[in-house]
Amino acid sequence: MPKHKLEKGLVQVYTGNGKGKTSAAFGSALRAVGRGLRVYVIQFIKGGFDYGELYIAKKIPRLTLTAFGRGKFITETPPSDRDVQLAREAFELAKKTVDNGKYDMVILDEINVVVNLRMIDVNEVIQLIKNKPAHVELILTGRNAPKEIVEAADLVTEMREVKHPYAKGVQPRKGIEY
Amino acid sequence: MPKHKLEKGLVQVYTGNGKGKTSAAFGSALRAVGRGLRVYVIQFIKGGFDYGELYIAKKIPRLTLTAFGRGKFITETPPSDRDVQLAREAFELAKKTVDNGKYDMVILDEINVVVNLRMIDVNEVIQLIKNKPAHVELILTGRNAPKEIVEAADLVTEMREVKHPYAKGVQPRKGIEY
Repeated sequence: MPKHKLEKGLVQVYTGNGKGKTSAAFGSALRAVGRGLRVYVIQFIKGGFDYGELYIAKKIPRLTLTAFGRGKFITETPPSDRDVQLAREAFELAKKTVDNGKYDMVILDEINVVVNLRMIDVNEVIQLIKNKPAHVELILTGRNAPKEIVEAADLVTEMREVKHPYAKGVQPRKGIEY
Repeated sequence: MPKHKLEKGLVQVYTGNGKGKTSAAFGSALRAVGRGLRVYVIQFIKGGFDYGELYIAKKIPRLTLTAFGRGKFITETPPSDRDVQLAREAFELAKKTVDNGKYDMVILDEINVVVNLRMIDVNEVIQLIKNKPAHVELILTGRNAPKEIVEAADLVTEMREVKHPYAKGVQPRKGIEY
């Protein structure tokens, strides 16, 4: 596998109420590592990433993953101190990982959600974006991307739910939705 | 890795003019294999899947991939006989793979495009959907999903382009867009 570096890394956002935001980020990671790029995935708050997926992530060369959060969605308002602390730890790791430029792609999965819950200040995310090394591709996912993040991004895709079986009473399925 | 089978496989469609359709399908594949499911990816016409990604796909357990097409997008109208023949071969493999039920998830990447180009009749795709074994999850990607396919699907997500750097003159980048 020849070494390959991006000349210019962009800032991508996957948002919207539809399925596929995290999956699109992981698919992008797969393509990137396939081209010899190094990828770091940091998962904020998501609980869906358990044994099976971690097991696969470990098999993929050049892919590093750190998952934060307590294995469930945050439903409390305001979020608990513990959840805020974990989001903060995730964000500190994100800053360090982006700033040091060792990874060609950094994925901040569900960061939009923690920003919306005011667990991380949107201005801190904007600073992260503005200060990133030029070659680093940054991907931010999660529904309801704040408008400041959309403005700061280069490429924004909205996953729009056109049709969803939950409306017909289908529950989330292991291996598909989580 | 414990064996795991879906009780009910659904039909998912990723469409729209935005980025992330194929990536979302591959991310779904990663999650599925992480849970012990078997996945078959059939790529229609797409040329982006070259050495790097095939190399990674081979490292992922329970993932099988066959890519058809001539390594470039089809721009001729009508498509050449060779392109039509490759689309037909891909579809025959798709039918066989879905019907035999050996794979828990079958991804037909860019099939919407070949249907729109009338290289495969939409009614054949509807038959494939209607006759699939109950446990098979079927994922169809590609822009401009025909309305018959949207109607037959359980879960449809539109990737909508909100902001795209091509408008600012950024060209597709190796490891990211292809």
